[in-house]
Order: sequence, then structure tokens, then C-alpha cells
Amino acid sequence: MYTDLPEDQLRSYRSAQTEPADFDAFWRKTLDEARAAGGDTAAVPVPTGLTTVDTFDVTFPGYAGEPVRAWLRLPRGADGPLPAVVQYVGYGGGRGHVLENLVWASAGFAHLQMDSRGQGSVWSRGDTPDSGPAGPQVPGVMTRGIEDPHDYYYRRLFTDAVRAVDAVRTLPQVDPDRVAVLGNSQGGGTALAAAGLVPDLAAVVAHVPFLCDFPRAVVVTDAHPFREIADYLATHRGHDEQVHRTLSYVDGVNFAARADAPARFSAALMDQTVPPSTVFAAHNAYAGPKEIDVWRYNGHEAGGPDDDAAALRFLRRHLGA
Amino acid sequence: MYTDLPEDQLRSYRSAQTEPADFDAFWRKTLDEARAAGGDTAAVPVPTGLTTVDTFDVTFPGYAGEPVRAWLRLPRGADGPLPAVVQYVGYGGGRGHVLENLVWASAGFAHLQMDSRGQGSVWSRGDTPDSGPAGPQVPGVMTRGIEDPHDYYYRRLFTDAVRAVDAVRTLPQVDPDRVAVLGNSQGGGTALAAAGLVPDLAAVVAHVPFLCDFPRAVVVTDAHPFREIADYLATHRGHDEQVHRTLSYVDGVNFAARADAPARFSAALMDQTVPPSTVFAAHNAYAGPKEIDVWRYNGHEAGGPDDDAAALRFLRRHLGA
Amino acid sequence: MYTDLPEDQLRSYRSAQTEPADFDAFWRKTLDEARAAGGDTAAVPVPTGLTTVDTFDVTFPGYAGEPVRAWLRLPRGADGPLPAVVQYVGYGGGRGHVLENLVWASAGFAHLQMDSRGQGSVWSRGDTPDSGPAGPQVPGVMTRGIEDPHDYYYRRLFTDAVRAVDAVRTLPQVDPDRVAVLGNSQGGGTALAAAGLVPDLAAVVAHVPFLCDFPRAVVVTDAHPFREIADYLATHRGHDEQVHRTLSYVDGVNFAARADAPARFSAALMDQTVPPSTVFAAHNAYAGPKEIDVWRYNGHEAGGPDDDAAALRFLRRHLGA
Amino acid sequence: MYTDLPEDQLRSYRSAQTEPADFDAFWRKTLDEARAAGGDTAAVPVPTGLTTVDTFDVTFPGYAGEPVRAWLRLPRGADGPLPAVVQYVGYGGGRGHVLENLVWASAGFAHLQMDSRGQGSVWSRGDTPDSGPAGPQVPGVMTRGIEDPHDYYYRRLFTDAVRAVDAVRTLPQVDPDRVAVLGNSQGGGTALAAAGLVPDLAAVVAHVPFLCDFPRAVVVTDAHPFREIADYLATHRGHDEQVHRTLSYVDGVNFAARADAPARFSAALMDQTVPPSTVFAAHNAYAGPKEIDVWRYNGHEAGGPDDDAAALRFLRRHLGA
Amino acid sequence: MYTDLPEDQLRSYRSAQTEPADFDAFWRKTLDEARAAGGDTAAVPVPTGLTTVDTFDVTFPGYAGEPVRAWLRLPRGADGPLPAVVQYVGYGGGRGHVLENLVWASAGFAHLQMDSRGQGSVWSRGDTPDSGPAGPQVPGVMTRGIEDPHDYYYRRLFTDAVRAVDAVRTLPQVDPDRVAVLGNSQGGGTALAAAGLVPDLAAVVAHVPFLCDFPRAVVVTDAHPFREIADYLATHRGHDEQVHRTLSYVDGVNFAARADAPARFSAALMDQTVPPSTVFAAHNAYAGPKEIDVWRYNGHEAGGPDDDAAALRFLRRHLGA
Amino acid sequence: MYTDLPEDQLRSYRSAQTEPADFDAFWRKTLDEARAAGGDTAAVPVPTGLTTVDTFDVTFPGYAGEPVRAWLRLPRGADGPLPAVVQYVGYGGGRGHVLENLVWASAGFAHLQMDSRGQGSVWSRGDTPDSGPAGPQVPGVMTRGIEDPHDYYYRRLFTDAVRAVDAVRTLPQVDPDRVAVLGNSQGGGTALAAAGLVPDLAAVVAHVPFLCDFPRAVVVTDAHPFREIADYLATHRGHDEQVHRTLSYVDGVNFAARADAPARFSAALMDQTVPPSTVFAAHNAYAGPKEIDVWRYNGHEAGGPDDDAAALRFLRRHLGA
Repeated sequence: MYTDLPEDQLRSYRSAQTEPADFDAFWRKTLDEARAAGGDTAAVPVPTGLTTVDTFDVTFPGYAGEPVRAWLRLPRGADGPLPAVVQYVGYGGGRGHVLENLVWASAGFAHLQMDSRGQGSVWSRGDTPDSGPAGPQVPGVMTRGIEDPHDYYYRRLFTDAVRAVDAVRTLPQVDPDRVAVLGNSQGGGTALAAAGLVPDLAAVVAHVPFLCDFPRAVVVTDAHPFREIADYLATHRGHDEQVHRTLSYVDGVNFAARADAPARFSAALMDQTVPPSTVFAAHNAYAGPKEIDVWRYNGHEAGGPDDDAAALRFLRRHLGA
Repeated sequence: MYTDLPEDQLRSYRSAQTEPADFDAFWRKTLDEARAAGGDTAAVPVPTGLTTVDTFDVTFPGYAGEPVRAWLRLPRGADGPLPAVVQYVGYGGGRGHVLENLVWASAGFAHLQMDSRGQGSVWSRGDTPDSGPAGPQVPGVMTRGIEDPHDYYYRRLFTDAVRAVDAVRTLPQVDPDRVAVLGNSQGGGTALAAAGLVPDLAAVVAHVPFLCDFPRAVVVTDAHPFREIADYLATHRGHDEQVHRTLSYVDGVNFAARADAPARFSAALMDQTVPPSTVFAAHNAYAGPKEIDVWRYNGHEAGGPDDDAAALRFLRRHLGA
Repeated sequence: MYTDLPEDQLRSYRSAQTEPADFDAFWRKTLDEARAAGGDTAAVPVPTGLTTVDTFDVTFPGYAGEPVRAWLRLPRGADGPLPAVVQYVGYGGGRGHVLENLVWASAGFAHLQMDSRGQGSVWSRGDTPDSGPAGPQVPGVMTRGIEDPHDYYYRRLFTDAVRAVDAVRTLPQVDPDRVAVLGNSQGGGTALAAAGLVPDLAAVVAHVPFLCDFPRAVVVTDAHPFREIADYLATHRGHDEQVHRTLSYVDGVNFAARADAPARFSAALMDQTVPPSTVFAAHNAYAGPKEIDVWRYNGHEAGGPDDDAAALRFLRRHLGA
Repeated sequence: MYTDLPEDQLRSYRSAQTEPADFDAFWRKTLDEARAAGGDTAAVPVPTGLTTVDTFDVTFPGYAGEPVRAWLRLPRGADGPLPAVVQYVGYGGGRGHVLENLVWASAGFAHLQMDSRGQGSVWSRGDTPDSGPAGPQVPGVMTRGIEDPHDYYYRRLFTDAVRAVDAVRTLPQVDPDRVAVLGNSQGGGTALAAAGLVPDLAAVVAHVPFLCDFPRAVVVTDAHPFREIADYLATHRGHDEQVHRTLSYVDGVNFAARADAPARFSAALMDQTVPPSTVFAAHNAYAGPKEIDVWRYNGHEAGGPDDDAAALRFLRRHLGA
Repeated sequence: MYTDLPEDQLRSYRSAQTEPADFDAFWRKTLDEARAAGGDTAAVPVPTGLTTVDTFDVTFPGYAGEPVRAWLRLPRGADGPLPAVVQYVGYGGGRGHVLENLVWASAGFAHLQMDSRGQGSVWSRGDTPDSGPAGPQVPGVMTRGIEDPHDYYYRRLFTDAVRAVDAVRTLPQVDPDRVAVLGNSQGGGTALAAAGLVPDLAAVVAHVPFLCDFPRAVVVTDAHPFREIADYLATHRGHDEQVHRTLSYVDGVNFAARADAPARFSAALMDQTVPPSTVFAAHNAYAGPKEIDVWRYNGHEAGGPDDDAAALRFLRRHLGA
Repeated sequence: MYTDLPEDQLRSYRSAQTEPADFDAFWRKTLDEARAAGGDTAAVPVPTGLTTVDTFDVTFPGYAGEPVRAWLRLPRGADGPLPAVVQYVGYGGGRGHVLENLVWASAGFAHLQMDSRGQGSVWSRGDTPDSGPAGPQVPGVMTRGIEDPHDYYYRRLFTDAVRAVDAVRTLPQVDPDRVAVLGNSQGGGTALAAAGLVPDLAAVVAHVPFLCDFPRAVVVTDAHPFREIADYLATHRGHDEQVHRTLSYVDGVNFAARADAPARFSAALMDQTVPPSTVFAAHNAYAGPKEIDVWRYNGHEAGGPDDDAAALRFLRRHLGA
């Protein structure tokens, strides 16, 4: 069943999220510090048994220069430099297994799949630890450090995401002018953050992006992981204002308003995990060229491989290949 | 938690399943009729946007010569003839989307992914209708035609599986002496059926194979789809004997006793859907060379991509590539 | 809790369902073909141990002349010809056991309880197979053949329903001018179909009728069996238009608009399975004389035996006895 | 799945339940007091719309002479005096609606369906209040008054059950030498109580009888209503001994050891509500002639109408009709 | 997620509940009879091992003079007479264990925790039996005697509540002019009843009070215990009017309109058990001075210890200590 | 229902857990480093509104000298020095609210309730952050740093627990020779760790202690939080050996074998969260004087306030007061 507003109201819906005055300064300083921390990017070949795709175990410097892992997949024998797709992962998962997720390299792109620090243990494995202060928290990462924007988990993850783009651009096989970011759910929210923080992306793909429009999201769904925030506030009564202040620094709605790369969204009208109004909140705020596919009979799986196929056409259009 | 016998008892467990006297005659006649029905195999190229894999929409003659669909994926530019992997699908799914399941072709194999007639609507899509008598049944296909082995759904599906091997061997890109069958869950049970019915396979991969050891399976788990049989018998009281007779014609234990190709199994000790004793029942009865991986902390997902990686090594060993 | 619109809005609610241009032609042709296929009606006495009710195992020609089973129950020793009640069954069930459902014969009616082809295995048993093409489908019968109105399961079931009325009128114990149709849930939806397709029924009873107002039903409830349609479309993305076209040929709203026999409906305000708005959609479109009982504190069980008692009075009024 | 011991162990299982020394004295005194309280039995005709069955609203004196309601159904026009079936109802239900449960009268028996005091609100309605002390209790009646056998709910219900037999024997339409008791679940347990307390019954039918073998029952299932006892003891820690003492006065195992009428039992191997070992505990202790049907693939619904059909044959054999 | 109306609509929401004409007479007569029945209050010291709190096992005369249990806790060595807090308990629980609930005495109040007759077995234990007629009912006490306001369970419980205030005022350690009532959920509803029936209370604390605004409550939530009423009406069809009449005699909305003591409420916007509109219904009808805390991210636990802390400050303000 | 071995087998059950050769060295070094890190203990009075209990917000140096929070509650006006109870908290919770948990101080003990670093957000609030490496992990803390005993969460928590005893002994109000540790579930497991690491405790109370006998625990229950370990291993296949090695450093069984203070355990036979065999594994290995209460009808709540009451008597016996 439909889980949110009627479709026509979704089309015109605007989030009530606000921007902290120092939003841009906060992120500029965060990224400046991460870049200043330096660190090298290494790519070690991995034997996989595949004959059409070459795979590398990549380590690049992320938040505070901390090492972050990724898989780099390249179509074997392709003439470079290649257009690149940097992919971010959904909640709970990591960069996964080398044999998973072969679509983008098989389609001719250099494909960097970034690990999610401290996640990677629920539905796909990861190899990157989280750092930083870990205050009292609800299980999961949604409320890790949520009392202060400087301590919040997503400050670190989104910085990793920006630095992944930085890293991929240094690879000899990649054409730095043709880099896209892509993800679904948490990966889509992360792609929107990158879109708002990296000025010259070639394209952005955010399928059912999570982490948008927190003021509405936390009161219109009982589903995890948005629910983790309500669970936290249920115990830590009276912290609402501070928690919502922190969330305003990582809300996809605020990143969308700063983005200019062509973007593709998708939303699903039967999605309980990421209510479609929160996707439209980001889409409707998105400052660059944009398109959105609405899946009327899907839950959070949304378009699944059909979203991938559409993204492939979209990326081909904007990056070539 | 462990869902079945202790591991040492699993290692020596033997099923109480029996063989109907006309088991071999039943299947010989079924396959003879299917082959006699003739029909052509067609392979139509499909544009997918992939650059390393060529994809074809295949139609081949299955049970009673009825058209069955499949995807054929080939590594682009590979020198043929290639070793081939025929894959069967898990319960409820179909051949899926062209962008899914790229591992086997990306590893250098010709990969034929057979559709499952009348399924393909729950977790991956299919395009092949079922035919034949559809008696009163519990939702799902487990009890479709279960009152008579001639009418039973799995007679048709397993015949399709054998004919898929026949079809792949006629393809110009395939080396007919190097064909393996592979699947997990229902796909693994189907692979065992093919292993028992096709005399000269190069290898068999059956991950957490479903459809084995019905006499035990239907009384030791409440999980679907084995549960569908108990649900049917709960309503159709007094039909137990006839239903179990039908099931003896399709039990993986009986196919295993006839197989001689090298086989790889996997079982999971926390699997509620396919209790590991039913997998060991087939493994322990398997007449050819065999190996089994036991996943102690997994449910029905078993080894997932780790099973794939092990299968890749196993197939490389037995088929080359 | 209430599951749908406030009661005053229900009273005036109109469905957005539309009629295909060839709706009447489609059904005229279907029924003509069924009648042209001929076939005999047989009624074999069944020993039941009952002393006040005589029971017969009936086989009559249904869709395409295929044999359909039913129970015929007659009050022993009653002077005929009797008014008759043709009853259709709820989703998943069949004609059941001879000892079940003695109300209508015990009240003096000839009672024909029609089996539901290919169902009859979930909560009551059946004995009639389905035929016809069975494309990829979600478990259950809601999506069997749903891509084409000619292949759709309910085309066959509703034809059986019409032919059951034809059959009962040929019975020597029945007064053909006093035949009513009755059912609840799927049985109620089937009764509405009969009401729209058989011109001279004496009465129609549709308790919480299922299968009405598909455009709304599939987006306002998560409960099965309406949910099967959303599940199908979730996998078969992009088939919405075709699927909704098929559904328009079997929507109770369209049958209701063609009916003229006096009708009794019931609806339940806490019904999640059949949202009351979909019942009112049919009721409000019903062209003949009509009444409706609203059960404010019931779910899909609705009035249960109280609906039966009310139906008994209603039938007595319109059929005598 | 099977919920209890293997079938061969069930066949020889003996309960560890013990008998309080004053068991017989307790019940003799209870029944003597009830009979001494006097009270009249009234049977008021009820208009139902049925033409083959006559229905009466009966009030008879139960525990402490308190009025208890029942439906009396008679086959219309049958020559009396008739053999009679006294039926007790499952947990939560009451005597139900007049249009329900027509089998026994339609088969030629006088059928008295006794209401269950203070229940009759969950799945079928009742009209008889409970009386007596109602100590702190878990919702439901399992722990009402459980601290003392004199206060316990089932002392009252079982006394009603005995007095129902007394009452039916006074009816002019009934042959007092041909009275059977029947029920399933709580009704079956109540029938066993009557079998142990009424010396000259013609037959006893106890389908999946509840309320047997409490020492085992409360520790081998989590399902309600046995679970209510564990829930009570979880809060009222340290009351185990007293509670089990009370239960020993109403355990079907102890009644079975005193019964001599021919008895029919049924048990279901997939029953979680009434574990089959507790049924066999009563069956194996039953002192009179006995038979048992085992339903291997059923849960608590057990044989359903097939149990009814078998009971009908059994009753015909022992009561005529 | 929010479970009810938006907060601004809650602020102005008014219940549709009505008052029976004899509401005041009904309660005056009930209380007069209870007081006329007499009975003594006894307080027996209980050894607990505590050194700062003295505990007494109190028995006082409640409804119809029946003995009701309570714990009396006093700060050891405090100079009396003390202000007192009479606390009522949530649904299913009783006065609990002597070591539980030490806050109020530790804060310097005489604390009387009243047992709930016939409950006290689900989450905390009780020791007081219920009496009176127990008609057919749904498990739980919500529908015990619900067909007649004189028989209804809450008539007895609320009379106990008033008599508990009477009793506490007779204690030598208590200042009868400084008595407050307090509770959450059912305890809060009971406190509102006391507030409406006892003219000279010093303060009232009703946290997420249950039992208010029945006309709305029973149709806007599926959660127990409000759900018990819908469950009852689902079986006892046609009794709505009578049941709602009974409920109007115990609705917190009607008591609130008669109260004049300063009151503190709390409501929780994610509460499914007690929808916040039903709390606001009582708050908005409350005739005395009032305040309300709204917990935006809590379910039925509401403010928990934060509600206690606020209540402590509120009581200190109105009672001193 | 019983969730584990029969009681007689529990009495003699021995865990298969083994000890790493450097177990003692590992912990000696860990504690030495923590003590060497220094840090002050501060106790700031907190206004609570209570008149019989004085409360202090304590900060003491824990693992690596990091500040850990606790509540210190003292009976007001008691003559010191007092015997002390150090309490550890169950999984997910923190030190809670100042108004909670007044039993121990009200009984005359100095009561230090230690916060659990990085938890305190699920059912009671906490205020202490976790530090240290946070590798990929399942939500919750069970698998945080589980790949290496040095990084594992429980190394830090157990060090905090030992340092809490150190800290309480420095308080002027406390008699350092009369300090007990106490907790239930995770708190009980932590108390066992303290019992094995602190040589001169006066008493130990471990109610249904969690974190014992990992080799059995992770395969005999599906319940969280033990389940987190299986979930981790399900994704991180092949890490079993390393993970179990880490767990052997924190297993309560190994701490129990080193303890000599008198200990009180409790276990619950219907406990799914902490299977009773894992409690007996620790109890049966416990080297000091010991007693155990078995709650036969309780789940993980075990004895609840009855466990508290028994612990109070036990502590009084061993600590005086």
C-alpha cells in the first residue's frame, strides 16, 4: 500500500528542514582538514577468477586521513582513461565480496565501490573501522556521536565519500573529468552529500536516497534505520533540539540545494524505510538538472535492476563510455 | 542457532526415502517424450549496455517440447568453444534481469540461466508459463499436481532442466563435453536432478539443495516452501501415502544415487528453510566424487558469494576455462 | 481500528475503475463458448450420515466445458421444486467437506456449493483442477494469467459461476425462477460477477465482496490476497497498465453496474483484507435494488453467522421457501 | 513440523501427574452440592428460519445451581426418544449462534451445546456469566481461582458439564440411556471430565483434548492457553506447588483413569497448542475401551470435519440413531 | 511515528463522549453504598530489609466494603503528619513487590500503592480478588460486566480508588488535607476518576491516562487493552449501543469535567496504546487548573522517570513535603 | 517452555570453553595499564528531590584512564563507613535516571551504579562514550572490535568494572573491606568478570549472567544479543576461530574459575536470551562458595524483585549493614 502522500502532493512537497548558518563553513573546514591530513592511495591487484574484469583492493585516505578501503573494478583490456563511477553502499553493508556487483565495470566504467566505515557486517561485509568518539548510542550508526555535528558518524562517512572521488581522480586509468557518484538508500544519501560537496561531478545517481528531510522522516515512519533516531530521543528525552541541529548538517535536502551536476533520482510509493516524501524533499530542492523515476508498486527495493538499467543509460548519456 | 542434528550425526545420516520400482522407467519415458516433441533453440541478442558480456534471449524446447526461456551470457571476445555452466534458479524466482548474475560469464564460461516455468514473480522475474493440469493446490508450486507423479510440477521443471543441458550443447559457442549444472536451493535440487538424469556432465554444484529427503524434511521444519506440503496434507487428509509416492519420483536423494559427475555441495547449520540433514541425505547418497562445505553460522543464504568463489575454483578445476 | 474512509464518505464513494469498451462482448463470447462446449451435469448421492439433508456430488460443465465439482444439498423430504441458493467460496478454499455448511439446505433451499478450480487447499478442500495457461505468477491465483484478460484465472472462475447457475436450473428438484447467488469475500465477488452476467436471478448476496475496485484496492491495503497484485507488479515493473486493463474485465464494480436482481451487501469497517471502500464502490454502483449492513467493529469476518441470519431473511423474502 | 515426541514414544507415554488423596471426595462433594442446589431446566423454542432443525434456548442448573445456557437442537419430525450428544466448547468460545453447528442434529441426534461460563467472547459468543471468587489472574480463565481447587474456574465448568448431562436426561425428547459427551480442545478436556464423573455415559469423544497432563504441558509449549499458567507462575513466584496441586484436581489424566464409557480420541502431531503427548497421556490412562486417530500433518485443527465424520460413525455405533 | 492527530489539532480536540443523565447519581449511590458497608483499615508492618523506608501491608474496605490490599510506604523517622500520594497501577499489574517503587516514600511522602482487584498477574503481582458478576468476556478486565454499568469492572475499581483516598486520610501518619492521587496509563485513568469523585484532593497526576474518550479510542487503535472492547463487539454484534452507554459512566472525559484539583497530565505522540488524542480529550475537558507535558518521541512509556521527576516537583509545589 | 537441558543435566553441565595461555597476563597487563593511567574520582551532589537518599554524579577513571560515569547513592544520615554494592547494567542500558533503582541505598548500602560505555540508549540512558577501534560490526556492542582481544569492547567494559571497585574503595563513606559486585544479565556477566579480576571482594551477585559459555551459547539460541555473534560470523565467514579466541578472553566461565568471593547466581529455565546452561556453565566452574536459585517458570526476567530480595539477604549476610 502507499506509505506516504498522494503522488501529486509529492511532486510539490518541500521539506521544512533548515540550514545552520555555518553549514558551508563546517563542511569546508572538515574537508580541508581531511585533505590536509594527506595519505596515499594504494591499489593492489586481487585474484578473483574473473577474466573480463580486473579487481584491485584500494586503500585511500578518508576522514582525518584515516585509511578507507574500496574495490576498484576495471573492464579488462579497455582503453583508458575511463569514465568512473564511485558507488556508496546501503545501511549495514560494506564494499562486499569481490564477486559481487559486476555491472558497472562490465559496462565499461572504472568502478570504485567504497566501504562504509564501521558497518559492513549485516548484509555485506566491510573491512574499514570507524574512529572517533562513540557516545551512548542506539545499536546501528545513526546515533553515533549525534549530540554534536563534529562527532557525528555521517560527518566522517560523507568526508570519506568526497575523498573517494578525490582518490579515483588520481588513478591513471580514470578520466578525472568524467566521474559520477551513485548509490541507493544510504548510498544514495551519500551520493547527494558528494553532489553537494564536490563541485565538478559529471553525474549523480541517487536511488531511494536515505538521510533526507529528517524533520519529517523521523515522525512518519516506524521503520529502521530512521527509527533509530526516535529510539534515541525516546531515552534521551529533551535532546531533540540538539539532535535535530546535528542532523541539519547532514540532511540530503541541504546538500541537494548546493548541487549542480545532472542527477537521477528514484522513489517508491510503497517504501516504508525511506518514505517517498523524503526523496521528493531532496529532489525538489536539487539545484541542478534532475529527473526522477517513481515506482508505484515497490517498497524500498524500488527499481532494483530496472533502476540500474536506467542509471546505465543515464550515465552513458552524461559520461560516455 | 543450529536447526538440525549435530554435525557428526549429519556426516553419517542416511535418508529413509525409498525408490519407486519404476523410477528409471518413469524418467526415461518422460525425457524420451520431451526429446521426441522436438522444437528449436533460438538465441536472440539483447542490448544490455554491457561491454564485456554478450547476452542472448534463448528459447529452447523443454517438457513436452514447450518453449522455455533462458539468458545466455558469453564473455565478449572469448575464443570458443567455451565450457558452459547451466544455472537453475531458487524457489519463486525466474531467470531475472539481464543485468543480474554476471559472475559466470565474467569468469569465462558460457552461462545459461534457465527460467523456472510459472514462477519468476516473487524475488526475480521470469517469462515462462507453466502448462499441464493444475489441481487444487496450496499457493506456490510445491503441490501443483502432487497427487500424481505424471502431473507433478517438478516432473516438468526437471525435464526442462535436462533439456536445457541438451540445448546448451547444441550452441556453436559451447564445448559439449564441458558442461556443468549449478544452482542453490531449488536450483541446487534441480542440479541434482540433472546430475541423476544426464549421464555425462563435467561437474555439478548444489548449494543448500532443496527438494531432498522429503520424508524427513516435511516433519522437521515449519518453513516454506517445504511447509507447503504439510499445509496441503493438513487439508487433504488421508492423501499422505499418494503424495509421498509422488515425491519419491523427484527426491534429490534418489537422483544423487544415480549421479557420477564430480559434485560440490554446501550446507548451513542454521538453515531453517532447507534443514542440513536433508542436504547431507543427498550428499551421503551421492554416487560420484563429492565434496561439501559446511557453513556453521549461516542460515539459508549459506556461503553466498563465498560459495560462488569456491564453485568457481571447483568448476575451473573440472572444466578448465 | 477503522481501516478506511469515514462512514459518511463511504456512503458516497465512487470507484475510479473504468470499463473496457469490449467488456460486454468479451463476456458474451466467453459464455457463449462455454455453453457451446456442452457437457452434462451429474449428481451422485453421497452417504454422509446425515438424516435431514441429502447430499450429492455434482459435476457440471464450466469454463470451456471443463468439469467443475460442487456439493448439492437438499432438505430431505421437502416438496419441490425448491428455491435454490448457489454459493461461491472464499479465497483459498474449495467446496469443503460434506458435513460443513448445512445452513442453507437446513433452511429449506436447494443448496449448490461450487468448488473453486485450482484452490481448495488452504482452509477447506476442493476437488476441481484449473486449466489454461499459467504464466509466471505470485503464489495464489490472483496473478495467474493476469497479463491478458483471456488468460486470467477469474475469467475461468466467473464462467464456472455462471454455468453453475445454468446447471442448477436444470435440476429436477429446483425451481429455475427462484435461484439466488451468494458468497462472502471471493465468493461475494463471484456472486456479483454472476449478478452482472446472469439476467434473471431472484436475489444476490455479497458479503464483504472481494475483487472490487482494483485501482484503489491495490494501493490502500497491504493484506493478501489484494497484495498479490502489488507483489506481482513489484517484480514485473512496467506491466501496470496491462495488468489493470485485465483487472477491469473482472472488477465487481463493472459487474454491479449491469445487475438488476435485488442485492444484499455487507461491509466491515475494521476489515483490512477487503477495505470497506471497495465494497461500497460495488454497492454504490449496483444498478438493482440493494441494501447493505455495515459492521463497525468487525474485520473481514464481518457479520459471520449474523450475516447468514440476515441473508436467510433476505432470501426468504425474495425467493420464498 | 512435529511438535512433540516421536509417534512410537507417544504410544507408550505415561504422565507424571499424580492424584490428590481426596480427588474423589472433592468431586463427589462438589457434585452433591450442585445437585442439592436444585433449579429447573427450561427449553424455550427459538425461531431460526431453519426447516429441518428445531432449536431451543435451554437454561439448566449448573455449578451451585447457577443457571447455565445451552442450545438444544432436534431433528424436526424425528421419532423420539432420541440418542443425545452433549457438546462442550473450545477455549474462549461460547455456545455460539443458532445457525452454527448443525451437524449433530442433522444426523438425527438430540444435540445440547453447553455454553462456557464467562467465556464466549473470542471466537463464538456465549451468554452465561461466571461466578465465584476471581483472584488475581492472567487474562483468560486458566488461572482464575487457581490458588485453591475449590475456587478454580474449572471446578465450576466441569460441574456445569456434569449437570448438562443430568439436564439432557430429563428432556422428554431424549433417551437417557443413550447420552454421549463430545468436544474438541477445551471441549474435549471437559468431555473427559464428564467421562470420569458420570458413570453411565454411552460414549465419549475427545478430539485433541486440552487440560491433560499439566506437569508436562506447561513446560513443553509456549502456546496459549497452557501458557497462561506459566505466565501466572512467572509473576507469582513460589506458588508452583499450590498451583500444581489445584491442577491435579482437574487434569484429564486423572479423569481418564476413572472413565469406562467407550472413547474416541484424536491427536495431531503438529499441534503446538495441545502437544500430542498430553493427549496420549490421557488416552493411555483411559480406563475404558478407547481408540485414537493420529493426524500427522495437522496442527490444533486436527481432523476438523474428518474428525466429525469419524465421530459420527463412532456415535452411531455406540448410540444407534 | 506519530500515531494520532497533529499536535496543534490535539491542543484543541474535544471528545464526542456524552454524559448519561444519571452519571452523578450513579456514582453517588455507588460510593454511598461502599461507605455504608463499613469495614476497617489495617496496616501490618512488613520486614523488607530496607532501612530508610517503613512498609506496611494495608487492607482497606473498597467497593461494597470488600477488602482491598495496598502497600503503605513511609520515610523512616519523618515527622508527621505527612503529605500523601495514593498511586493506582497500570493494566494487568498489581501493587507489586515491596522492594519496587520506592520513589515517593524516599521523597518524603506517605505512599499508598493500591492493588488492582483481579489483575496483578501480568507484569507485577497483586493480591486482591475481584468479585461481582463476570459475564461472557474477552480475556482481560476491559469487558468484564460491560453490558451494564452496575456490573462493570471499572465501577468496582474506581470505587476502590475513592475508598483508598478515604482510607489514607484515616492514617495517623497522614495529613488528610494534603492527599494527591497519581498513576500512569490505567493508573492515570483511575486518578482522573478519583479526581472527579473526591472533591478536595490536593493534586492529581495522570500520565498517559488510559480509559478516556472511548468513542474515539476504540476505533483509532488496534492495540490492547482498548482493543478488547472492539474484540468483544466483534463477537457480540449489536451490543454497541449498550456497551458505549456503560463506558460513558467510566470515561475519564466525564470525570475530568467534574474535577477541580490542580492536575498534571502527560501524553506521548508515538503512543499506540493510549492515542494522545484520548489524553487531550481528558485534559481539554479538565475543569481544574492543569498542565500537560507532551513527549514527541515516546510511545506509551511516555516520560518514564522524567515524568516522575516532573511529578515530584509538581507534588512538592502543591503538597509541600 | 523450557529452553534448554533438563534441570538435572544443568546441575552437572560443564562448558567446553577453553582458556588462552595468556589469559591472566592479558588481564594483568590491561589492568596495570588502566591503573597506571591515573585519573581522579569526582563525586558531585545531584539534587533529586529525594529526602532519604543522597545522590552523587561520579566520574572515575576506567579503561585507559578514560572517564566513566556512575551514580552514587547513599542512605541519608547513615553512619559510615558503609558496606558498598557496585552494580553493573544490562545490555543496551546505562546508569539510568537518578530516580531509578533506589533499593540498595534504601537498604543501607553505599550503591555505585556504573554506566556502560557507549550503551545507555535503549532502555535506560547512559552518559559515557566508548573509545577505541570500532571495526566493522553488527549493530550493538557484542562484535565491536571482536577480531582482536585487545580491541574488543568487553576488554574495556570489564576494565571499567574493576576500576569502579577501585574507585568506590577510595570513597570516604565506604568501608573498602566490604564491597560487593552485583548485576543481572550483562551486569551479571560483568560482576563475574570483576569477581575473577578483583581478589578481595566481599560478595558477588550474578543474576542470569550473560556472556558465559560462548561456544554453546552462540549455537543454542537465536535471541539477541548472543545472536549478534552469529550474525557477524554469517557475514564474516571464516573468522570463527579468531572470534572464538577473542571471546575466550571475556567468557564468564574463565573468570568464574578464578573467583573466590561468596557468590549468588540465578538462572531461569524458560530464558531464551541467556540459556540456563550457560549460567550453570559459570556456576559449575565457580571456584568460590556459591549458591544458585532456579526460576522454573520465568524467562530472562528471572526472579526480578524476588532475586533482589534474596540478594539483599545474601549481601546482609556477607557484608553486614
